[in-house]
Amino acid sequence: MKLWDKGISIDKKIEKFTVGNDRELDMYLAEYDITASKAHAKMLGEIGILEKDEVPALLSELDKLQKQVENNEFVIEEEFEDVHSKIEYELTKVLGDTGKKIHTARSRNDQVLVAMQLYFKENLIEIRQKTEGLIDILLGLAEQYKDKLLPGYTHLQVAMPSSFGLWFSAYAEILIDDLFQLDAALKVADQNPLGSAAGYGSSFPIDREFTTKELGFKTLKYNSVAAQMSRGKCERTVTSAIAGLANTLARFSMDICLYMSQNFGFISFPDELTTGSSIMPHKKNPDVFELIRGKSNKLQAISTEMVLITNNLPSGYHRDYQLIKENSMTSVEGIKEILDIFSYSISQIIVKDIDLNDEKYKYLFTVDSINDLVIDGASFRDAYKEIGGQVQDGTYQPGEGRKHSHLGSKDNLALDKIAAKKKL
Amino acid sequence: MKLWDKGISIDKKIEKFTVGNDRELDMYLAEYDITASKAHAKMLGEIGILEKDEVPALLSELDKLQKQVENNEFVIEEEFEDVHSKIEYELTKVLGDTGKKIHTARSRNDQVLVAMQLYFKENLIEIRQKTEGLIDILLGLAEQYKDKLLPGYTHLQVAMPSSFGLWFSAYAEILIDDLFQLDAALKVADQNPLGSAAGYGSSFPIDREFTTKELGFKTLKYNSVAAQMSRGKCERTVTSAIAGLANTLARFSMDICLYMSQNFGFISFPDELTTGSSIMPHKKNPDVFELIRGKSNKLQAISTEMVLITNNLPSGYHRDYQLIKENSMTSVEGIKEILDIFSYSISQIIVKDIDLNDEKYKYLFTVDSINDLVIDGASFRDAYKEIGGQVQDGTYQPGEGRKHSHLGSKDNLALDKIAAKKKL
Amino acid sequence: MKLWDKGISIDKKIEKFTVGNDRELDMYLAEYDITASKAHAKMLGEIGILEKDEVPALLSELDKLQKQVENNEFVIEEEFEDVHSKIEYELTKVLGDTGKKIHTARSRNDQVLVAMQLYFKENLIEIRQKTEGLIDILLGLAEQYKDKLLPGYTHLQVAMPSSFGLWFSAYAEILIDDLFQLDAALKVADQNPLGSAAGYGSSFPIDREFTTKELGFKTLKYNSVAAQMSRGKCERTVTSAIAGLANTLARFSMDICLYMSQNFGFISFPDELTTGSSIMPHKKNPDVFELIRGKSNKLQAISTEMVLITNNLPSGYHRDYQLIKENSMTSVEGIKEILDIFSYSISQIIVKDIDLNDEKYKYLFTVDSINDLVIDGASFRDAYKEIGGQVQDGTYQPGEGRKHSHLGSKDNLALDKIAAKKKL
Amino acid sequence: MKLWDKGISIDKKIEKFTVGNDRELDMYLAEYDITASKAHAKMLGEIGILEKDEVPALLSELDKLQKQVENNEFVIEEEFEDVHSKIEYELTKVLGDTGKKIHTARSRNDQVLVAMQLYFKENLIEIRQKTEGLIDILLGLAEQYKDKLLPGYTHLQVAMPSSFGLWFSAYAEILIDDLFQLDAALKVADQNPLGSAAGYGSSFPIDREFTTKELGFKTLKYNSVAAQMSRGKCERTVTSAIAGLANTLARFSMDICLYMSQNFGFISFPDELTTGSSIMPHKKNPDVFELIRGKSNKLQAISTEMVLITNNLPSGYHRDYQLIKENSMTSVEGIKEILDIFSYSISQIIVKDIDLNDEKYKYLFTVDSINDLVIDGASFRDAYKEIGGQVQDGTYQPGEGRKHSHLGSKDNLALDKIAAKKKL
Repeated sequence: MKLWDKGISIDKKIEKFTVGNDRELDMYLAEYDITASKAHAKMLGEIGILEKDEVPALLSELDKLQKQVENNEFVIEEEFEDVHSKIEYELTKVLGDTGKKIHTARSRNDQVLVAMQLYFKENLIEIRQKTEGLIDILLGLAEQYKDKLLPGYTHLQVAMPSSFGLWFSAYAEILIDDLFQLDAALKVADQNPLGSAAGYGSSFPIDREFTTKELGFKTLKYNSVAAQMSRGKCERTVTSAIAGLANTLARFSMDICLYMSQNFGFISFPDELTTGSSIMPHKKNPDVFELIRGKSNKLQAISTEMVLITNNLPSGYHRDYQLIKENSMTSVEGIKEILDIFSYSISQIIVKDIDLNDEKYKYLFTVDSINDLVIDGASFRDAYKEIGGQVQDGTYQPGEGRKHSHLGSKDNLALDKIAAKKKL
Repeated sequence: MKLWDKGISIDKKIEKFTVGNDRELDMYLAEYDITASKAHAKMLGEIGILEKDEVPALLSELDKLQKQVENNEFVIEEEFEDVHSKIEYELTKVLGDTGKKIHTARSRNDQVLVAMQLYFKENLIEIRQKTEGLIDILLGLAEQYKDKLLPGYTHLQVAMPSSFGLWFSAYAEILIDDLFQLDAALKVADQNPLGSAAGYGSSFPIDREFTTKELGFKTLKYNSVAAQMSRGKCERTVTSAIAGLANTLARFSMDICLYMSQNFGFISFPDELTTGSSIMPHKKNPDVFELIRGKSNKLQAISTEMVLITNNLPSGYHRDYQLIKENSMTSVEGIKEILDIFSYSISQIIVKDIDLNDEKYKYLFTVDSINDLVIDGASFRDAYKEIGGQVQDGTYQPGEGRKHSHLGSKDNLALDKIAAKKKL
Repeated sequence: MKLWDKGISIDKKIEKFTVGNDRELDMYLAEYDITASKAHAKMLGEIGILEKDEVPALLSELDKLQKQVENNEFVIEEEFEDVHSKIEYELTKVLGDTGKKIHTARSRNDQVLVAMQLYFKENLIEIRQKTEGLIDILLGLAEQYKDKLLPGYTHLQVAMPSSFGLWFSAYAEILIDDLFQLDAALKVADQNPLGSAAGYGSSFPIDREFTTKELGFKTLKYNSVAAQMSRGKCERTVTSAIAGLANTLARFSMDICLYMSQNFGFISFPDELTTGSSIMPHKKNPDVFELIRGKSNKLQAISTEMVLITNNLPSGYHRDYQLIKENSMTSVEGIKEILDIFSYSISQIIVKDIDLNDEKYKYLFTVDSINDLVIDGASFRDAYKEIGGQVQDGTYQPGEGRKHSHLGSKDNLALDKIAAKKKL
Repeated sequence: MKLWDKGISIDKKIEKFTVGNDRELDMYLAEYDITASKAHAKMLGEIGILEKDEVPALLSELDKLQKQVENNEFVIEEEFEDVHSKIEYELTKVLGDTGKKIHTARSRNDQVLVAMQLYFKENLIEIRQKTEGLIDILLGLAEQYKDKLLPGYTHLQVAMPSSFGLWFSAYAEILIDDLFQLDAALKVADQNPLGSAAGYGSSFPIDREFTTKELGFKTLKYNSVAAQMSRGKCERTVTSAIAGLANTLARFSMDICLYMSQNFGFISFPDELTTGSSIMPHKKNPDVFELIRGKSNKLQAISTEMVLITNNLPSGYHRDYQLIKENSMTSVEGIKEILDIFSYSISQIIVKDIDLNDEKYKYLFTVDSINDLVIDGASFRDAYKEIGGQVQDGTYQPGEGRKHSHLGSKDNLALDKIAAKKKL
């Protein structure tokens, strides 16, 4: 911890307060810091700041550390404040002065920035894939259950006929909207900040296009001050995109919990996906989907946190930025877990038979009844009056229900067209 | 108001409570509702629900209303609950039964949806243009003041040399990140919901691809349930993208207010852009930028509102959705106003001369001093120690400062490359 | 508008941007500004800054303005930027120099502060009364329907027997928690800020204890800087307390909307409190409660706005504070309207008969069945096993259900004890 | 984990997903669960459900566990899903059937509720004490530095003279507002929920007044449904009160960071409270206060999370509530840590001499200059014009500055009166 460096003793409490849980979070960043360090080392070799033979030496040691990470053998001991000091220590231990040189022309600031952005990039791609996977599952369920009718509600009141096909594929199509936001977040993250140093660049003649290419970034965040400002902006954008996705999953879970209620009884899940009660022997509770809903709602709160931490702060680095690391990573790791559990669980859904002849669904077909009359020549207004009168005096009898032929209606789901939108 | 329709008297308070300020907001939507009605009428003609001659009659009347809107002569009187009933009333007054037929195969739900999405589409494009305009102004200022140095701060402490060129173009480049989010929001809005009716489609054989083409939507929101769910999702995405932009402008305004403080004294504005005080005769306050900051912060709160209103609601329309209209439109209208005022005001900024020889900026060049020694052959560690020692014992004398040559540094702003990213 | 004062022309857009909708909001503040001005005038008389005869002259004119406000005849014309300049103008028009003297030893800052706090005080008391009124209505309904059973749910699954008595009085008791927060907000508002001027006090020998007594404040916000800082803090506290209340009402409304669904069918409302559909002739939608829920959720977003505007701003007035006026007043006016509508509507609730013998409620009494066995001597574990086995093999038959005798159970509602907590 | 109980294998991922980090959080709850279990056991003895000798046996074992907790020897092993099952296991291991009986007439629901509320109660009292401690420190600093002048700012512009006495005691007085909210939260937490079981009470004749007295609760949450609804409401209220406090500390920290900037230079801290930079040898950064600011801002986001998780959920327990445990405890533990660090650090503040004769502070005394003229007989308007003219033409010379005599002004801080408000 830096405070010690001046050789002044200070109580443990302040130390703990300032270091926080960085070591733990940094385990997720180790591989990205190593990758970025390798690119930086190669670049320093290119511009002559590292000697010919120093570069391969550094790369070789960095590769060894990367192996440790892959094998879960990499550890950040308590004496290191973060992953960056740990890695520098290891390099210096083996390579001496050459190890120290790796920090030339960069600062902790752009080192954290580049590692975070590489982490976001890789994960946003993974989150997109998982979301696409869920979309495919939902489209599959829609196809499978396209003929199963479901009451459609407005205002939570029985309204018009819907179907399981419509229901599953509706969420699939809404998830595609969430992909658009993920793509925008990826664009924000996909700009190399390395070389911005402490936010004001460096007087060394570094080659930022070299590291950009080396790291596979699509472009640079050119301006050094802008690169520093990406801290906060990038996290806000990523967590906001994830929040959009979480919002969809939370609402889907609400439907699921409601439809599992005995008062709806539309769906159920195998026993191993429900939980019992210590007091009520008959309970089969939808805990998994309640937790998906709750955890998704937590993820929605995170972008507010990002804004609250950074809001109204003048430009230039502030230590506050250290704190946005935690929950931006919670957001990334959380949504991946939620997507996995959701996909795993929804695949096992049991669609039940719904008796649409039940008294409470009697009026589900009034619009179809009106349209029958309209097709037979009545004006909509007269037809509405006629059926409304029947409802009023209790003589209404639902008909068969009509086929809906238009694109995106219950009898014409357009699943292939929805699937194609994933790549829009 | 619908409640009356049943012929039951009800007190004014409930009426006011349920109608809210819809009439006022709907003035912004009139042109889009008319446009969508025209497309819907043409389509009804195509599929034979409207007679040959009914379509031109409807289009002609709708064109007259559109003219009224353009000339600010269109009024929604108190007896109408919203723009949609007003327009239908006008059509029916002139065309009788033909006017009534326009509502065939659509519902208030998809009528609001399509009008809102057309409104968002047009405005997101306009907001992008205004943002690009501001970016250009900032890049122009960066070019103009590229040689003017500015102290760079970290932790609000004097850190390293920066420049007005870096500062202006940093915000330009960050605004480009905001464009990416606007583009994603546009993609969400650019999907035709018309034809989803009350959220479960219609039994009429409507041609949704026809209206999609007619209205210039890029694609359809195919699934009728998904189209209905776009209510809320679309507003959340749009307001969240706008919030990102607002966040950037709020932070820029904070810099401006701070830099105008006598304790910084880096910039000022002409008298007509500052305000005085009724009690202190010397005051020239940066009210415009304080209000930009405050209003931008208000816009950031709106996406939280969108989430709070829609969160955990089961699928299907709820009346709550009426309430997201107000602040999603506040967000759109607000950011346009803010962008205009910001562009107008920042163009008049007065960049002052900063005396970097002032005692408080003495240590601005320590990193350059270290790098001087490194270039002369010292290791960074030794050089840091040497300069650190001079600072400690008070003998440190800043040098000239070094040129920074790398991409995105104060002496190599890469403004053209930043400008090119607007179209990324 | 102040910008003009320097005789510099400026475009309308900036004027509109800076003045905002202050005139409109200020109509709510007029009476409080007049009240505070009267107290200030008397005090200036006491300390000799106003002459003997100037005080009654000012008081008499202020009384006339107060009458105008009471009779809805008070108008703030477009040429005034706010209520404060309007009132000062009126006084000066009639009284000349004496009118101008009213502004001695105060500034716009503490003038707004004291008017806002008087407004909050009076309204918090009114909101408390309205909430108490609603609590009484709910306790009355609980008494009325104490014998009507209702299925109790956990995880939205049928769980154990509840009752309308429990349901109504539960919300009554939770509303009492909200009273505690209102009381805390009142304590924050009930501290006289007048005399703090622009936030740093005044060199005039004003008597702040005199105005405190005169205005009926419980105490002073002594420190002038603290008084200025109350701007923001006070609004945040008030809107957060109101948000708590809104949260309760939103959740209650969710129950109501759900219980009105045909799938529950527990309650209904008279036709004049429900709305129909332009497309479905059978619909009786709970729009009033959906709008209560939605508006309550909007009010919950407001305290986030208060924080976002003021967060991370250094101490001392900033123009941003002007912007928190709008939504803090929206919050106050909004909750009063919601409380009125809620009380009016809930009073007309129709409690329906629920057939607890319906198959879906079969397991509602399993815990009672277990407890029957326990009372007869079995251990809970054995009893649970026994009844669980019956549920499993389909032989379970619900019993009569047991009486619950303990305080706060369905058969012992303790309504008088709950009522007594209102004054805690 | 309950899912296993049915003897069905399930993958680890779902297990981890549903259990979360409950075991870790529950370490904070162990002592409260034991305390509540003791009260419950005594009550069961009183009403004859436990035998005469079973009660002392249970109490004795619970005391042993309490000792373990006190000595940090208590561990919740991986095989237990939470602290409640661990404790029940321990009791049953030693006492057999008697151990099992402790769960009679309660459920996991009210067991968690009562433990959380006891935890909140004790901690709110501790947080109040720590806040009072900080208030005393600030009042002490105000007294110590009451004669040290400080420029006062409005709009971040030099405005009028302030003092360190005013500045320190302003925050002291604002913290008193925060106490009011803490007290309200305490009132919400101080209502016994034990006996509400799963939210619908119990058919056992439990004596809830007995446990209320035993546990030192001020009153009961009588209604069983209301007791269950306290979950969420209580956490929202507690975290919102803490957010208020955090808001004050964040803003205070912003002042501190700003005043430490070389451009202000009003204060500093000893070296051991500042941090250096790896790249700039001259840096003494205010990391502690930046982290207080950032962590306080994080705490402000938590009440939004509480709302997002619980919003729009129908009444009755949902598993989502498990998730509000984590961050409500983060809020409680976080604010205690922040208060400690803030008190520790602010005590060491170094107040620097400020040269108010510096050119940039020249206009600090214009209001005093005007008042001088007013006291000498001029009208405020003429005096303002006179001094304004001098400012305009550059002839203004500041005077000595006037004494401010009124309550709460720089020369009459009223510190004892502020101190007395802590007990309001």
